[in-house]
Amino acid sequence: MTAPELPDTAADLLRRLQARGAVRDFRPDPVPEAWLDALLAAGQRAPTSSNLQACSVIVVRDAQLREQLATLASNQRHVVDCPVFLVFCADLSRVALACEAQGAAMDDTLELGLVASIDAALVAMTLAAAAETMGLASVFIGALRNHPGDVARLLGLPQRAFAAFGLCLGWPRTPPVPKPRLPRAAFVHEDRYDSSASEAALADYDRQLALHYRARGKETTDDSWSRTTGRKFSVGRRRALRAELAALGLKME
Amino acid sequence: MTAPELPDTAADLLRRLQARGAVRDFRPDPVPEAWLDALLAAGQRAPTSSNLQACSVIVVRDAQLREQLATLASNQRHVVDCPVFLVFCADLSRVALACEAQGAAMDDTLELGLVASIDAALVAMTLAAAAETMGLASVFIGALRNHPGDVARLLGLPQRAFAAFGLCLGWPRTPPVPKPRLPRAAFVHEDRYDSSASEAALADYDRQLALHYRARGKETTDDSWSRTTGRKFSVGRRRALRAELAALGLKME
Repeated sequence: MTAPELPDTAADLLRRLQARGAVRDFRPDPVPEAWLDALLAAGQRAPTSSNLQACSVIVVRDAQLREQLATLASNQRHVVDCPVFLVFCADLSRVALACEAQGAAMDDTLELGLVASIDAALVAMTLAAAAETMGLASVFIGALRNHPGDVARLLGLPQRAFAAFGLCLGWPRTPPVPKPRLPRAAFVHEDRYDSSASEAALADYDRQLALHYRARGKETTDDSWSRTTGRKFSVGRRRALRAELAALGLKME
Repeated sequence: MTAPELPDTAADLLRRLQARGAVRDFRPDPVPEAWLDALLAAGQRAPTSSNLQACSVIVVRDAQLREQLATLASNQRHVVDCPVFLVFCADLSRVALACEAQGAAMDDTLELGLVASIDAALVAMTLAAAAETMGLASVFIGALRNHPGDVARLLGLPQRAFAAFGLCLGWPRTPPVPKPRLPRAAFVHEDRYDSSASEAALADYDRQLALHYRARGKETTDDSWSRTTGRKFSVGRRRALRAELAALGLKME
């Protein structure tokens, strides 16, 4: 059976999503304010668990603030240079207010911490997907989690909120070259998770990614996903996060 | 200055995102397999922190499995009745394998738990946004986190993975009526978070949401966001999550 033809918008969006990749080098041209407004409005319509809307967005325009955030985020220059820099906060401060209005304290659970982080991601991805259809490109800045306390102070966040990640947005200087993804067998499963394919999939992926880097003249000893990942995540990366978030009122117990 | 006109795809996507809302009542018509394949492929292209790709998706077709998952998820019948039911796993099992290949154990941090949960949300939102452009509707099922251990056993998840949420997908029987969102002043901030507007924004929103429910004949004592939220999240909802995830190999320390 042939599937019905896709609507134009769907076909175009799918094509753009397939071609997308992280962009860190932007043309200086500004993003029209009306377009940014439309993107923020679309982001606010993202689905949200229990209608909590546990995300707030900060549009960072101040040059000095951008410099300070870039420094905290492993000196990523695109945080300063991109036309639009947004910070997505996992924000439970309004939930806390609602609880206080009931004469109670917000129950500071891991559940709520995850809900707020997922809400932030849903808002950001809605916005980033819509941006792709405008011809804009983006890169997520997870390194804002290097120093959540300092970032919260710089941005004047209320208690019960933290900067989950940033997003640089603008016109790409050159189109991104999408990185290969894991073999589909590792990503999609039917009814039950099939672990048996995982090791072969990773070996296959290591080869594919090495070819990708080689084709781009980026041959390094770090070209294997398994090696890079294994080294990076067995050594206690951002171990202070838990304590720093607790100090911001998010113990996530 | 007038902003340049939006590309057609952008205008159409923004319109659809503004009109979207959770849909729980689907027509029985199937989603073409080729469309589902395209959605899963688009989801796999979502941005991912450090290229970790810490998300796996399970397409649940088995009727008995659907029944069992629906029961665990507060008896939500649409988990059984929807044409497509997907489970998005925050999946660090491949990262753990990569660490083991380096002769080390994965450092089980809150950071990695958040990365995986955010990755799952980025994949799901990419897929859900693309689905809207096909005329499909969806609802996220956070209640899979009611009993993460049972869900993991039913789906045969490996250690270091949990079902972050599900997604019901299909053709809406009737178009959703989008719920009002918080006043923009509470959601978007410029340079620094402005807490001063929060209480007024919540009072305003409580009125708006009450009007929305009244217009839909849903006048209840629960029509206030502040009251509902304050009651629901000061009483220890999903308190077992932390211990249950730890048992699945995700201590998130």
